[in-house]
Amino acid sequence: MNNRLPIADLAHCQGQTVTISGWLHNFRRLKKVSFLILRDVTGLAQVVLTDEALVETIAPLNRESVLQITAEVAAVEQAPNGIELHNPTIEILSEATEIPPFDMFRPTLEAQLPTILDKAVLSLRHPQHKARWQIAAAAMQGFRETLRNQAFTEIQTPKIVSTATESGANVFEIDYFGQSAYLAQSPQFYKQMMVGVFERVFEVGPVFRAEPHTTTRHLSQYTSLDAEMGFINNHYDVMKVLTEVIRGMMTTVQTHAQQAITELDCEIPQVPATIPAIHFTEAQELYFQETGNDERNEPDLSPEQERWLGAWAQSEHNSDFLFVTGYPMKKRPFYTHRDPSRPDYSNSFDLLFRGVELVTGGQRLHQHADYLTACKQWKVDVESISGYLAAFAHGMPPHGGFAIGLERFVAQLTGTANVRLTTLFPRDTKRLIP
Amino acid sequence: MNNRLPIADLAHCQGQTVTISGWLHNFRRLKKVSFLILRDVTGLAQVVLTDEALVETIAPLNRESVLQITAEVAAVEQAPNGIELHNPTIEILSEATEIPPFDMFRPTLEAQLPTILDKAVLSLRHPQHKARWQIAAAAMQGFRETLRNQAFTEIQTPKIVSTATESGANVFEIDYFGQSAYLAQSPQFYKQMMVGVFERVFEVGPVFRAEPHTTTRHLSQYTSLDAEMGFINNHYDVMKVLTEVIRGMMTTVQTHAQQAITELDCEIPQVPATIPAIHFTEAQELYFQETGNDERNEPDLSPEQERWLGAWAQSEHNSDFLFVTGYPMKKRPFYTHRDPSRPDYSNSFDLLFRGVELVTGGQRLHQHADYLTACKQWKVDVESISGYLAAFAHGMPPHGGFAIGLERFVAQLTGTANVRLTTLFPRDTKRLIP
Repeated sequence: MNNRLPIADLAHCQGQTVTISGWLHNFRRLKKVSFLILRDVTGLAQVVLTDEALVETIAPLNRESVLQITAEVAAVEQAPNGIELHNPTIEILSEATEIPPFDMFRPTLEAQLPTILDKAVLSLRHPQHKARWQIAAAAMQGFRETLRNQAFTEIQTPKIVSTATESGANVFEIDYFGQSAYLAQSPQFYKQMMVGVFERVFEVGPVFRAEPHTTTRHLSQYTSLDAEMGFINNHYDVMKVLTEVIRGMMTTVQTHAQQAITELDCEIPQVPATIPAIHFTEAQELYFQETGNDERNEPDLSPEQERWLGAWAQSEHNSDFLFVTGYPMKKRPFYTHRDPSRPDYSNSFDLLFRGVELVTGGQRLHQHADYLTACKQWKVDVESISGYLAAFAHGMPPHGGFAIGLERFVAQLTGTANVRLTTLFPRDTKRLIP
Repeated sequence: MNNRLPIADLAHCQGQTVTISGWLHNFRRLKKVSFLILRDVTGLAQVVLTDEALVETIAPLNRESVLQITAEVAAVEQAPNGIELHNPTIEILSEATEIPPFDMFRPTLEAQLPTILDKAVLSLRHPQHKARWQIAAAAMQGFRETLRNQAFTEIQTPKIVSTATESGANVFEIDYFGQSAYLAQSPQFYKQMMVGVFERVFEVGPVFRAEPHTTTRHLSQYTSLDAEMGFINNHYDVMKVLTEVIRGMMTTVQTHAQQAITELDCEIPQVPATIPAIHFTEAQELYFQETGNDERNEPDLSPEQERWLGAWAQSEHNSDFLFVTGYPMKKRPFYTHRDPSRPDYSNSFDLLFRGVELVTGGQRLHQHADYLTACKQWKVDVESISGYLAAFAHGMPPHGGFAIGLERFVAQLTGTANVRLTTLFPRDTKRLIP
């Protein structure tokens, strides 16, 4: 298979005899001529069969059988992409033994979500479904490359931990050589600890949430894009790096997943040089002034407020993105750094993308004494996190970071309603296979 | 901290007043002058203190306190790197509250392994310990970039699975919403399934082995660098890609972790254009002919044989690397593809690096019927892996792949005896923290 030509390159090979291989996407048998559509990862090719014996061999094959086809490339105006393959010889590499439960050749898969997910090995082969993950892959690449260019070091941290990271709830328990352990809900503690070593770190990896609800936005395992950096003044330094990261992700998606963008017909947003930022209290006040709905005493923004703020950022700043800064301390985790000038509020932020929260981040505490105080206040057992606190006992710089959920990022970018469709093999309360 | 200068850049700033920040690596108080060594991720800087009041402020600080120093850069021949900082003003960013249990400033950490691992947040700050992971980070980058350049798509697969991947032993059990599930021992099944979607895939992620033994080569969680590719003729196509991957990893380590290589004084090997390959049976025969030890009836190579073969590849082929191909079927997993011409042997390979196995790979079965036969023979319950088998029922091309253990790769490259030192926070039978 050394001379195998990607289907996307056929257009450059008119008049030549070439060999392509891939999956039997569709087959239409007419009276005098039959059309075979072959699919590889780069595209679709139409092959014309006129030889009756060959048609008799191919016609009984199940869709998705794997074929290798040697044929002549002909320019034919009315064919898809203006290219057709003539006079084929066909080798069957692998026969599909089952009939697909849905038509792979339709522009959109017409099947119920459970069927699509049960048959992920098949549904993900559909160009539209494959495209979502191609965007995810490009996004990961953009995330890493942007951070590496800014002197961040990639880390891999333990997924088996002795204590729940974020809270005792929603954590999976595991039997670890006879003792209880847990699956990490985030690399938060470890990425902070590693700021003491590499100053700037990032991690792309699985995190686990035993989320008991079934929603379109939650998965039991998702891919978290985490970054953490030292020697900052405050959260605004983190927001600057995040802005570059989002820009890098969008650029990489644009350049490396162009086919997927076209397939999904989605619009890649412009990232402003400076993303507009509004303080939490101003956001609440603005929303009240403009809508008359008073949510100024709420400790968090409602989804409706976020949507409204997204529209406001669009009309006021021509931006798909909006930073909301300074969330109240009481809704943030114990390691959150207070705003020194307004201690009820934090040096934290959310990044809204088209009116939905996409990223959470902020400055963390860095003084050991501040951790002891916070643990007392938040009722966190210091003994249970002594390994983490040791980092601060041994000197840590002011630092902060952020985390992006890959599946949500792709869902929002592509307008996909359910994050189960922006991962490969979703895990939820009911789903453990495939 | 926007004008913070990396310590490595001091050499270019002679005569200027600059601001650096980092950790108090060492402090030596002499009669008339004191020397402060500041460490950041890029290197060490010597700061000269003559002001008595300043010395009184700094002298009581614990090592590893975080400082910001503004001072004049002076070229001083006898100083480390020929650079000294004079007339400093020092701001204490964060005071270390604990005294390090070992001397961070010695060229090598003088402490027992358990102490080093217990205090990973501190020991990893030591230049030599940090260096190992810097090589790991560069290796991951080289792995990904080489594969992306060869049209591989990055995937992220489930770490919570319904059945043990490789075998029923050595698997961690988890309580998944009241039912039993397991931590994935490898992404093997998923990367194969994804060949049906993206043709060529790779994954960098954690895998979990409930390895009951305590050895210097096993971890309960390690980072697996996995690749799988479709439309191959046989395992030799996989070996070609692997050769490029190893070359890419070595090149990236060389270019992106130069400081770490120097720190560890390790030699990055040349990867030959074609890595020499020897069939398993020939390797056994050669070993017997040359040493007189008869292990020709063994189903696997012994560590002693691997060492001998490594030396042989070095002297005979001037290569640090050697492929051993065609291992007996009986020692390989059920999805292994037989050698069509010698059915007792497989289309598989190991890559030896300096006489130790570094990579395992090979061609897999791709016909659905062959899986059914293999499952019967290997006594694998087809029902328990129905999600995996569905991929083959729906048509899969000939394919194969390989997996590299990141920690072992770094250990062998750097001559580190224990893989616990080539990961950040090792997990073993006894170690769950930090």
